[in-house]
Parts: sequence; C-alpha cells; structure tokens
Amino acid sequence: MTNGVDGSPDDHSIDGRRRNQTSAEDARVARTRADVSAAALEVLTTEGWDAVTHATVARVAGYSKTTLYTHWPSRVDLLGLALDVLGEMPHHTPTGDLRADLIGEMTVFRDAVLSLRLDRILLALAHWGATEDDIARVRTRLVADGESVVRTVLGRVAGGTRLDAAVAMFSGAVICPVLMYGETPTDEVVAAAVDIVLHGVSTD
Amino acid sequence: MTNGVDGSPDDHSIDGRRRNQTSAEDARVARTRADVSAAALEVLTTEGWDAVTHATVARVAGYSKTTLYTHWPSRVDLLGLALDVLGEMPHHTPTGDLRADLIGEMTVFRDAVLSLRLDRILLALAHWGATEDDIARVRTRLVADGESVVRTVLGRVAGGTRLDAAVAMFSGAVICPVLMYGETPTDEVVAAAVDIVLHGVSTD
Repeated sequence: MTNGVDGSPDDHSIDGRRRNQTSAEDARVARTRADVSAAALEVLTTEGWDAVTHATVARVAGYSKTTLYTHWPSRVDLLGLALDVLGEMPHHTPTGDLRADLIGEMTVFRDAVLSLRLDRILLALAHWGATEDDIARVRTRLVADGESVVRTVLGRVAGGTRLDAAVAMFSGAVICPVLMYGETPTDEVVAAAVDIVLHGVSTD
Repeated sequence: MTNGVDGSPDDHSIDGRRRNQTSAEDARVARTRADVSAAALEVLTTEGWDAVTHATVARVAGYSKTTLYTHWPSRVDLLGLALDVLGEMPHHTPTGDLRADLIGEMTVFRDAVLSLRLDRILLALAHWGATEDDIARVRTRLVADGESVVRTVLGRVAGGTRLDAAVAMFSGAVICPVLMYGETPTDEVVAAAVDIVLHGVSTD
C-alpha cells in the first residue's frame, strides 16, 4: 500500500498523479530487487561468493550491469541482497525425545548444508562478516536462528559455558567435515557426536 | 645444486657455460617464487583470498604483474604458492596427561587461528578445495597435520566413528565460534569442550 503518511486510501488531491507514478516506480524497483536478490543467492550458492560480481549477477538476473551498479554499487550490497531472500533455516520439530531430537536436528542441518549450500553461505558470511557490519548482523541473525533448536533442546540438560561448548561442538561435527574434507558426516558420526555430548554433559 | 643428471660437481665440458646460465636462471626463478609465495601468503592472511589477485600480490612482492602472469597464470596458482610456504601447523607437545594435553593442543590451535589467521587459510582451502584438485591435496595435508596431535592423544580413549566425531567436535569448538561469531572461544569454553568429550567417550 502506498497511501501516504495520512493513511487515506481515497486520496484525490493534486498529489494523486505524482503519487501513482511513485507507486509504479516503487513496484518496478521492488521487482528488480526481488529478481536481483534471487539471482545473487543463486550465484552465491552454486558458484561461491567469488562469482558474486555485478557482471555475473546481472547476467543471471537478466538486467544490465548499469542497473545493478546504480542501485547496489558494491559487491557487499549484492551479498546482502542474496542473504535477504535466504529465509529461515530449516529445522527438526522437537518431539521431547532428547537423543532423537538432537540427531534429527543435526541431520536436518547436515542435509541443508547440501541442499541450500549452507557451507558456501557460511563461508561468505565468515569472510565478509569480519569487516562489514551489515553482513555481521545478518550472520548473527542466521547463526542464532540456525542454533536455536539445538540450544533449546540441549538447554534442558546443560547451561552456561557447557552449553556454549556443546552447541559449538554440534555445529562443528557437521560443518568441520564439510570445510576440512569436503564431505558431510555420516549418520553414524552424527549419532556418535550426540551420544558423546549427551553422555558428556550428564552428571553421573 | 644444479650439477646435472650425471651428478658431477666439476663439469668442464662444452655444456658448462650453458649449464651455468641455466643455474643462474633457476636461482632467479627460485628467488622470485619465494618472494611471490611470501607475498601471496601475506595478502591471504591479512586481507583474505578475495585480495589474492595478480595486481595485489605483484605490488606486495615488488614484481610486475607480467612476471606473475607468466609463471603463475591463475589465482589458484597464487593460492597454491601461498600454501606452499605456510609450513607445519604449530602443536602442543604431549606430556601424557590426557586432559592437559587436549586443553593444551586446543589452546595452541585457538591461538594459531589468531596469529597465523588459520581461519582465513581454512576459508580459502574450503572454497578452492571444492573444485581444484591441487588445493584439495594441500587441504588434506594441512588438515591431517592440524588434527594429528588430537587424534593421537584422543586415540588412547576412543576409536573409529567415535574418534572421528570427537576430532570434528574439537575442531568445531575452536573454529565454529570464529566463523559464526567472529571470536575465538574462551579458556573456559575450551576446557568445557575437553571435559564433555572426555566424560562422553568414557565407558563408565
């Protein structure tokens, strides 16, 4: 809706025509933004962030490089657009069975690394987040979202520093094999990680 | 040594002058290679691999872009040079005290992430290792070197899938906070991770 700040939907004032032009312009910019966002995310996840350049994203989105440079002058702007449309992280829905819920959530995370190429998104966030405040904020939001289920489920049996260590270890059990060996962990490694941590944080 | 394939150090044959020229040429190439390698590693660890371009590395090394393109035509070549001179990973020397050795090794790893910027090196390896066989081989070697002490020490109390899971979790306890929050884990988180895993892999 573009009713103006007075909120009147039936505005017949002298400003009406100009406002309609602005509305059409806004819609065009919004459509361009959506197209470019989708293209930037596609390039990021299929080719990595080295490929997220104005030339490549313009080609994939079907716009001119000039249009992209006009609205989003830097490569970080393009990365920000890509992350804007990434959406929520996929999650396992907890059932109340501690072990099954942790294995389920780690399995969803592992599979999302492959299907959404979360490893490439994480690499881009880690690289740009170190120097760009906007990207660091996106990173913080995505990581908090990504960790939320493990943190809640595991929070039933651990807290404080032990919870922080356990959450980092669960993330690491999935992401380290991807980053360091180029392969995701097997079901057996996921289950072993859950069993080690559950046994490890128990008080007996 | 450039004595030729016959191994004679006192060669006065008709080929001597040409061989000396080759030797001087080899020495010059070797010096260029060493200079460019050092410059490429410096650029990688201070600015990240986005900055590892022929222009930047040539400037830092004090050579012309043409020289770099002649010997190392691609950016992957420059990354390979940087990794060639990275050397061995720093390690804690095991004392036989399981808990102290694991905490010591993780602390050395954490500190090396900051001092050597291992996170940036890991990001470059993860990115390029996915598509470039040469880089994947360097990655395998560096990861095996990096994990060797934890794998040996922890191998006294765990094996097989549980050892693989535990090693990935230890790496993750250090590297995930760096990649995901932009900060290294505290001494308390390192100790908590070691205690969780040691308790978790125990059979009682």
